[in-house]
Amino acid sequence: MFSSAVSSSLLILHKPLARVIRFPIPKLPLSPNPRPLSSLSPAASALTPNAVGAGGRAGALSPAPITEDLQKIDVNPPKGTRDFPPEDMRLRNWLFYHFREVSRLFGFEEVDFPVLESEALYIRKAGEEIRDQLYCFEDRGNRRVALRPELTPSLARLVIQKGKSLSLPLKWFAVGQCWRYERMTRGRRREHYQWNMDIIGVPEVTAEAELISSIVTFFKRLGITASDVGFKVSSRKVLQEVLRHYSIPEALFGKVCIIIDKIEKIPVDDIKSELKSAGVSEEAIEQLLQVLSIKSLTKLEEILGDAGEAVADLKQLFSLAEKFGYSEWIQFDASIVRGLAYYTGIVFEGFDRGGKLRAICGGGRYDRLLSTFGGDDIPASGFGFGDAVIVELLKEKGLLPELSLQVENIVCALDPGLQGAAATVATILRGKGQSVDLVLENKPLKWVFKRAARINANRLILVGDSEWQRGMVGVKILSSGEQHEIKLDELE
Amino acid sequence: MFSSAVSSSLLILHKPLARVIRFPIPKLPLSPNPRPLSSLSPAASALTPNAVGAGGRAGALSPAPITEDLQKIDVNPPKGTRDFPPEDMRLRNWLFYHFREVSRLFGFEEVDFPVLESEALYIRKAGEEIRDQLYCFEDRGNRRVALRPELTPSLARLVIQKGKSLSLPLKWFAVGQCWRYERMTRGRRREHYQWNMDIIGVPEVTAEAELISSIVTFFKRLGITASDVGFKVSSRKVLQEVLRHYSIPEALFGKVCIIIDKIEKIPVDDIKSELKSAGVSEEAIEQLLQVLSIKSLTKLEEILGDAGEAVADLKQLFSLAEKFGYSEWIQFDASIVRGLAYYTGIVFEGFDRGGKLRAICGGGRYDRLLSTFGGDDIPASGFGFGDAVIVELLKEKGLLPELSLQVENIVCALDPGLQGAAATVATILRGKGQSVDLVLENKPLKWVFKRAARINANRLILVGDSEWQRGMVGVKILSSGEQHEIKLDELE
Repeated sequence: MFSSAVSSSLLILHKPLARVIRFPIPKLPLSPNPRPLSSLSPAASALTPNAVGAGGRAGALSPAPITEDLQKIDVNPPKGTRDFPPEDMRLRNWLFYHFREVSRLFGFEEVDFPVLESEALYIRKAGEEIRDQLYCFEDRGNRRVALRPELTPSLARLVIQKGKSLSLPLKWFAVGQCWRYERMTRGRRREHYQWNMDIIGVPEVTAEAELISSIVTFFKRLGITASDVGFKVSSRKVLQEVLRHYSIPEALFGKVCIIIDKIEKIPVDDIKSELKSAGVSEEAIEQLLQVLSIKSLTKLEEILGDAGEAVADLKQLFSLAEKFGYSEWIQFDASIVRGLAYYTGIVFEGFDRGGKLRAICGGGRYDRLLSTFGGDDIPASGFGFGDAVIVELLKEKGLLPELSLQVENIVCALDPGLQGAAATVATILRGKGQSVDLVLENKPLKWVFKRAARINANRLILVGDSEWQRGMVGVKILSSGEQHEIKLDELE
Repeated sequence: MFSSAVSSSLLILHKPLARVIRFPIPKLPLSPNPRPLSSLSPAASALTPNAVGAGGRAGALSPAPITEDLQKIDVNPPKGTRDFPPEDMRLRNWLFYHFREVSRLFGFEEVDFPVLESEALYIRKAGEEIRDQLYCFEDRGNRRVALRPELTPSLARLVIQKGKSLSLPLKWFAVGQCWRYERMTRGRRREHYQWNMDIIGVPEVTAEAELISSIVTFFKRLGITASDVGFKVSSRKVLQEVLRHYSIPEALFGKVCIIIDKIEKIPVDDIKSELKSAGVSEEAIEQLLQVLSIKSLTKLEEILGDAGEAVADLKQLFSLAEKFGYSEWIQFDASIVRGLAYYTGIVFEGFDRGGKLRAICGGGRYDRLLSTFGGDDIPASGFGFGDAVIVELLKEKGLLPELSLQVENIVCALDPGLQGAAATVATILRGKGQSVDLVLENKPLKWVFKRAARINANRLILVGDSEWQRGMVGVKILSSGEQHEIKLDELE
């Protein structure tokens, strides 16, 4: 469509590109003058900052939309996923900063794994919700793969792979995106980020106590108190001791836990019939449900005796909690079993005392996970802490921080011809570690002040002709309005 | 398998759980004594740190592997993907830190998008390599989705979605994982992380000059110089002016660029025949190839004349480069077109002057991308900078940093009964912002020193009985061997 405008007066060049042809650019109605070298032309500066769609280069030589058919795409992210525009990214970064900072305080090392894993890593037989919601598919090489629903299986895989080269205990943390394919009811998303901390190689309950301490430290940093949030703690060994008493096969254990985990979500009669079809006798079911209602360690001890590991572990954990200084955050609750099949000992769950929100985080001991992958077992415990419920809680409590963009300097040329000089000033300041928003077009001062306010700049550096000739720039402190000239080499 | 060991002497409880049964725990051969409340037993401390698989809790009540059939999983990450064990994660974090720090210096705001996008976002007709390698599949809701191969289309989508609420110009950066499904030749991976910086709303070449300045700043921070790396710069408008001269339809432009981008990878005769089948005349092909061989702006000007945008843009860019202070990093090279269909103006590519590595980064102006998605166009430019080639370059130049774990303190109880006291000490130190590796088991001092060395601890804090009774702990400065007692409330 533009080719008809091209002049046909071609000049053959002599050398070295003998056959290359010279194309004088035609003067077209919309662009009557040759474009000046400096493109800070009045036409460009007339662009208002919010004029979305008005900003295309005005010259007639602008190409048509490249090569594609026009298609109207869906401008929303895929169902259940999120964009992170700057304001949301600031919140995410703030949250992740605290995840990382707490992990650092506890001496943990960061790790990560592929977001895409082999599906086999998640195929467990206990009928967990997490498996039903696996975001899995076949790749172009016909491999069954899945977007990871959790981080622990990848961690176990890596630990087996590294084998004896690892110095135990490992204290590892990760902040990674996890996926589930869920019917989009209840406004739940299909992806979330999860902070995990894991201790590999410590059989003692000290590990679980340390992990809960790190979550408490995290809550405190955010302004969340023990009256906002608590931890319900139990042990899978409680159920185990009951099941063993009724001679229920060990192989059923994971499945029973998964059924019981649904106790607050589905009617108790459904729980009973699920347990029955899993092969648990009616007597055992009644017993289980009774034990699950216990909220006191003393009562648990009355029932299970004091010689078993369940009670001993829990007693030790509560004793350590006192020494760590978070007794008021935790309580025994036998109904907590957690929805993952691989837990073997202590399990815990952070909950909103207001009762409005789902579990905030959860974890426990999983001493037998590695052998389910064919590795040698190593005692392990860990937790997962998602980025969704915590944000709801912070909103609820008025604890969401106000995070705004902050750029230290805004640098602006007062004359289109000084754009290069402004670039020099920006480079000097950046070299000294100062952040600079360089105004890239010729804009009226009013616009520059508006932008300075939007980016919360401390200083406005103005590059004007007469100052520049004297090696100076104008500096305006935006909080006070104070204004002075500074020599370029004294700019800090 | 353990149920036969359970005693049958059951006691019916009276209240309140009338039907709950008391289970005295049997004394089994392997665990003859009731487990002590403190589990820092000698048996546990006998674990050597490297004894992978030897760490299972020794008591006979340990359950069998949970509920799964034993399966040997592949312990490697899926083909073409990576795990990030701590040492690799430290390098990734170091690299990302510099990406983010440079972006901050330039006043850019961080954003992110879903790693899983609608496939439609990437279906362009120019036959780009990136489309052929799309990691796409059908999800469980029969939607065509893809793991993002690049970040720019998502950015364009978000910009259209936000529309007039945005204050232009936007200066956005992102560090995100991108995917391609490639035959695994040449040891290339299927995922990499990419740093993107984009300026939306600036039609001037100042934007491209600023972007290249930020990459130069990044290189310099890492110790990379202009003799290691350079930028080849051209403009899509060079080709456009040639094509227009030959009345080649605008719609072919993207396709021609994609073909030409392969010029260093496939024989020139193949390029010619591809161009021919795309509908470019033989004369135009010869002309194109001639122009592409130009490495001097003066020569380009001789051929294209001085009135066109291609020459004017490039001249302005080189003039700005001088003011920004990176002239020695850039050179004109007409053969650079970049392999993405959407570029419309300046294009650039960071290359290894040693000639061993693929392009390190690349970018350019894409003023017409938004309209291909049905939005109104906004002038835009940006670059992508992957995490793979840069690491190879750093290796090559001996510039890879030595990054090691560093935990400020290691805290250790000298007696199993003092594990709680050690927890108290750790909590105090962490409350003061000090990182602490708390030894969670009863370990010999030799082991503790070894661990202290591995984590590069500055101080070893020993919690011993006699000191603890006086409210003191032992502190050993590990670099000097200096040792003293400090009051608990004076510990900092």
